[in-house]
Amino acid sequence: MNVLIVYAHPEPTSLNGSLKDFAVRHLAAAGHQVQVSDLYAMGWKAVLDASDNTAKPAGEPVKPDLDSKRAYERGTQSPDISAEQEKLRQADAVILQFPLWWFSMPAILKGWVERVYAYGFAYGVGEHSDSHWGDRYGEGSMQGKRAMLLVTAGGWESHYGPRGVNGPIDDLLFPIQHGTLFYPGFDVLPPFVVYRTGRMDAARFEQVSAQLGQRLDNLWSTPPLPFRPQNGGAYTIPELTLKEEIAPGQTGLPIHLYSK
Amino acid sequence: MNVLIVYAHPEPTSLNGSLKDFAVRHLAAAGHQVQVSDLYAMGWKAVLDASDNTAKPAGEPVKPDLDSKRAYERGTQSPDISAEQEKLRQADAVILQFPLWWFSMPAILKGWVERVYAYGFAYGVGEHSDSHWGDRYGEGSMQGKRAMLLVTAGGWESHYGPRGVNGPIDDLLFPIQHGTLFYPGFDVLPPFVVYRTGRMDAARFEQVSAQLGQRLDNLWSTPPLPFRPQNGGAYTIPELTLKEEIAPGQTGLPIHLYSK
Repeated sequence: MNVLIVYAHPEPTSLNGSLKDFAVRHLAAAGHQVQVSDLYAMGWKAVLDASDNTAKPAGEPVKPDLDSKRAYERGTQSPDISAEQEKLRQADAVILQFPLWWFSMPAILKGWVERVYAYGFAYGVGEHSDSHWGDRYGEGSMQGKRAMLLVTAGGWESHYGPRGVNGPIDDLLFPIQHGTLFYPGFDVLPPFVVYRTGRMDAARFEQVSAQLGQRLDNLWSTPPLPFRPQNGGAYTIPELTLKEEIAPGQTGLPIHLYSK
Repeated sequence: MNVLIVYAHPEPTSLNGSLKDFAVRHLAAAGHQVQVSDLYAMGWKAVLDASDNTAKPAGEPVKPDLDSKRAYERGTQSPDISAEQEKLRQADAVILQFPLWWFSMPAILKGWVERVYAYGFAYGVGEHSDSHWGDRYGEGSMQGKRAMLLVTAGGWESHYGPRGVNGPIDDLLFPIQHGTLFYPGFDVLPPFVVYRTGRMDAARFEQVSAQLGQRLDNLWSTPPLPFRPQNGGAYTIPELTLKEEIAPGQTGLPIHLYSK
């Protein structure tokens, strides 16, 4: 299988760097093809702007979605964008690896999503009708592929627990897991999160990397998070609200999973 | 009063640009001092890296938190970072204005947070003891200042409602409002969100800007979101979980507000 790791940490000798190296070795040893987009090493351009459409006439107003659509359709995207899209097409599984900075992805990775997820590629796909509101949330260009987050956090696991002060990790990651991975059609696996990274020694790294190795071994057998498909009948269209009879009376992020 | 608007949109003639211009004019007309950090116009460097500490010896491993701490303490931060910190110090209220891209801030604004929120300035502040886990979540350098998000979204309001497919807007914004604004001590006002931006005409813009004008008039009187202070007795320390007797049996993001 082909695995793409999109990796966002500035320091190769960091915990993140070591975990990335471990993952690459482990997957390769199991016979997989591994590709790494090391965003810092690539000098990835984080900021979406007019130059992302190489055919954009100078001085014309920037319209992020329309510019993206035109560039994607006409083949005038900046080459760094189309290269990443090609890696996504070839991948059977994608791992986004990053340290949790301010409860979200580092800017460089957010900018990868914004620029690579072109209109017509990752959004604005499929028809809009009375029964189908675009190919998204369970359908789309990434359907059939798997995705997983590999995240490190300085805080304690309890700080990110169901009643932890930071908010539950699943809720904090919802905009990423549901909003950027399930959205274009990925099956999203439970995240692999390493907490309290300031307390890492050789013994714990051994333990953590063994756990990661297991997760990588099970990349194709782990059940994905049971997010509800948007067009599968659970949501009204076009309001896109969960139908009354499903999780009746409940609100919040977890209702978008089958099990709630 | 001094108001800082941190603004992240590439196009001056966009809806965001028009709302920003309106806000500046409206606040100035009311006698306030307004400063705008127009991140795209400034060519803001989005990516946190070794160069953010100008005294960092070449080839030394990048340690984002330690590097930030040293640069902040020793006055060797990149000048663009210290300039933004000075704007924050002078501000009585801060507005973060941005289009919701992939259910979060644009990368350029995320990078502003990552770089400007230095260790010792916005985190790593205050003592850690049995009763106090750092000056954060209600305490910290920004205490006494107010903050508000001004956000535009292409989707419908119902898509972001309590049972909407995207997730409730309050939950999607939690990592920003709670995790980056309440964290360093801001009083966080309810966000001003404009939905369905593709359907904007002169009449609706008139209506939306009038509503925004009201919010700006009430910037100092609107009750902030009642997030619970971390060190106020609601959380166990050091586990930082909500005490059992508060919102008993409940989990999720809304329990971190008094009213839940």
